[in-house]
Amino acid sequence: MPRYKLTIEYDGTPFAGWQRQDGQLTVQGVVEAALEQFVGPVEVFASGRTDTGVHARGQVVHVDFPVERKPFNICEGLNVLMLPHPVSVLAAEEVAPTFHARFDAKQRHYLYRIINRSSRLGLDATRAWHQFRPLDLDAMREGAQYLIGKHDFTSFRSSTCQSKDPVKTMDDITITTRSNNPEQIMIRVSSRSFLHHQVRNMVGTLAMVGSGKWKPEQVKQALEARDRRAGGVTAPAHGLYFMRVDY
Amino acid sequence: MPRYKLTIEYDGTPFAGWQRQDGQLTVQGVVEAALEQFVGPVEVFASGRTDTGVHARGQVVHVDFPVERKPFNICEGLNVLMLPHPVSVLAAEEVAPTFHARFDAKQRHYLYRIINRSSRLGLDATRAWHQFRPLDLDAMREGAQYLIGKHDFTSFRSSTCQSKDPVKTMDDITITTRSNNPEQIMIRVSSRSFLHHQVRNMVGTLAMVGSGKWKPEQVKQALEARDRRAGGVTAPAHGLYFMRVDY
Repeated sequence: MPRYKLTIEYDGTPFAGWQRQDGQLTVQGVVEAALEQFVGPVEVFASGRTDTGVHARGQVVHVDFPVERKPFNICEGLNVLMLPHPVSVLAAEEVAPTFHARFDAKQRHYLYRIINRSSRLGLDATRAWHQFRPLDLDAMREGAQYLIGKHDFTSFRSSTCQSKDPVKTMDDITITTRSNNPEQIMIRVSSRSFLHHQVRNMVGTLAMVGSGKWKPEQVKQALEARDRRAGGVTAPAHGLYFMRVDY
Repeated sequence: MPRYKLTIEYDGTPFAGWQRQDGQLTVQGVVEAALEQFVGPVEVFASGRTDTGVHARGQVVHVDFPVERKPFNICEGLNVLMLPHPVSVLAAEEVAPTFHARFDAKQRHYLYRIINRSSRLGLDATRAWHQFRPLDLDAMREGAQYLIGKHDFTSFRSSTCQSKDPVKTMDDITITTRSNNPEQIMIRVSSRSFLHHQVRNMVGTLAMVGSGKWKPEQVKQALEARDRRAGGVTAPAHGLYFMRVDY
């Protein structure tokens, strides 16, 4: 039973999230349906679930095949079988039978895209969060500093989050723009693991800081409250990209 | 009758192109329907039509209003009335009653996006052209040099193109990648005006050069033949972005 690691890209727009659900179009459902045609029924294990509308540039899964297949043929075969859904297997490699996409992850990287301008989004309507009030990036960066490091993130997780431990370590949060596209704000967050809605809740809170509704220090107060009601708003799913997992 | 210049962004995916057509969803149709609700029936004149699937970051139109409206209110009003279509008015300004979006254009700028990798496109399926053979950018740049300047572009225009004069001047063609995303190839083309399908035919031809099917000098031969059958393939519409018009 060879085990394979697959790296997967998808446009989250048409999907009811990653996880397989009866009667819903999900990314896991599309990937497993293609795998069933390719090698028979198998189950994929993802490094992390993504919510409805969240995109991925580098979701990672592992899956056990009943037979050996060449990595190139896995990519090509699955990519044809998944048509016309906007999902693509970027890479496949055989890994040790002990490799686990979720438990072996050392660091996960997310990108959140905000477009900061007065008019609503046309081309990026399903791919970024529209913020019409001018955002102060320096204030957002100051607020983000309070989130870096090891903290109890209870104030920044979904009230339905099922993780036993709300303590996580944010390794890095960077907030950048490009000189040729200053209205696009990119927030990159890296951590070994995240709580449910954590990135979206942190981004929503930083946007409140950027717009002047909150002072940067209020991020610290929210964190210390350890109460979801003390945290800021939840940024919408469609600005979020699951970029990469390091093992 | 004040005349306004509007700058418009859209995702070309759901539209049967720019131009109004009975029974089809078109960008012009959506913009004019919103304008009719806003100020009554009016006709918009675009700087250029775009084909089905072509995107715009900065299409420009002019339109005469029966009444004055503030630019900010025009943007806000139209953007609400055009929901849920992926079209946005980025800017509105009152212009001289002699201004013409099409005839006064001094330079038009297009971007064509290619993603060059083995696996098919997930997130960019409707937003870039997938080329799976590795493309040689230096060869493409060499081929592009033959297209710069004033030429008869008969070999690079649609056989249905209705322009009387096939002579156009390409001011610039640049082919670039970003170091953090080397698989994305961006081809930028600037000219006062273009023939129908000209950018897509030039890009399709340069991709043939990049993949080694054509030598760079064959671009020159194709140009000199003044025959569409001598030109290369037509790159698909969904990689093309109408970026900006200078007046």
